[in-house]
Amino acid sequence: MERNTGARRTHIKQEIRILGIDDSPLISEDILVVGAVMRGGEWLEGVLRTYIKKDGLDATGKLVDMVRSSKHFGQIRVAMLNGVTMGGFNAVDMEALYESTGIPVISVMRKPPDMASIKSALKNLSEPEHRFEVISRAGNAIEVPAKRGKPIYMQYKGLDADSALNIVRSSTTHSRVPEPLRVAHLIATGIVLGESSPRP
Amino acid sequence: MERNTGARRTHIKQEIRILGIDDSPLISEDILVVGAVMRGGEWLEGVLRTYIKKDGLDATGKLVDMVRSSKHFGQIRVAMLNGVTMGGFNAVDMEALYESTGIPVISVMRKPPDMASIKSALKNLSEPEHRFEVISRAGNAIEVPAKRGKPIYMQYKGLDADSALNIVRSSTTHSRVPEPLRVAHLIATGIVLGESSPRP
Repeated sequence: MERNTGARRTHIKQEIRILGIDDSPLISEDILVVGAVMRGGEWLEGVLRTYIKKDGLDATGKLVDMVRSSKHFGQIRVAMLNGVTMGGFNAVDMEALYESTGIPVISVMRKPPDMASIKSALKNLSEPEHRFEVISRAGNAIEVPAKRGKPIYMQYKGLDADSALNIVRSSTTHSRVPEPLRVAHLIATGIVLGESSPRP
Repeated sequence: MERNTGARRTHIKQEIRILGIDDSPLISEDILVVGAVMRGGEWLEGVLRTYIKKDGLDATGKLVDMVRSSKHFGQIRVAMLNGVTMGGFNAVDMEALYESTGIPVISVMRKPPDMASIKSALKNLSEPEHRFEVISRAGNAIEVPAKRGKPIYMQYKGLDADSALNIVRSSTTHSRVPEPLRVAHLIATGIVLGESSPRP
């Protein structure tokens, strides 16, 4: 039995439920946000959705409600975001999302956030300081070296860097981003536009 | 090389693109219909959607448009339906769908259709004879023996029974129905209801 411990751990890790969350294109005031529950980063087990306001302040609350009301709530081991702003500049408070659900949160992006540009863009919106504080609360983005090609970047709350890194890498199989985010993106764009766009 | 022919054939078969199509619950007059393009019955490659009228007569035309306008059109090797009626009794003409797209069509269901019950139900709708003729055109449902558990049933146009059987069986991996239909069902119900229902 003892000799199998490593394999057993790997097996458990591959089978964890990950919730990938992505928004849809900004074509109306109410923005569709899709959650894809995937087991082992491979098998789609459930689809959730909510709506948030374009450039609104309701993303965190809407995501907390979506996650907590899901029948998958007790099984989801980690939530993944495609960056912490969705629906324009509707910022997700990763700390609050983690604390209100008990589910660790990882934000994945293709480039580290450019905080100066974000600060500047927020000037045109209500509550710019509050939004900037929420976005900053996600913490520094650290590099996730790619198996091949360009790296991606992540921020994380509720788990340590090594665990976050392992989850991101083991769930990244078919593209540069983890499968739950790739699938949530395909669904969100497909439903709103009529056909999905490939790149999250 | 010759000794590998069987394995090579299997590999090609596993990589074909299948479009699974399912409707959503009848909660409005415009019914969301979702198409899931899956490669090898495993990997979600694209999401399509259209809307049809509840108990309308536009399902065939809307599906033809959805398929023909997709960037995946040239790659889809077979389309699968969850029965030939969607959005209530909006019947899909499998022959017309095949002839207008050049893509073979397989309809999969948990029970063979009860034509007497269908005929009776259609009496309350416009054009009952036309609808019944379209539904009948799908042909006899033949049994697909399950690896374990209950069989499912299929109707098919544009390919032979053996090919249809092979495609249905090789794409049925995680539940009683083929993966592209399971995934289309999760998306359609999740988007409309806020959370997917498990059973197509």
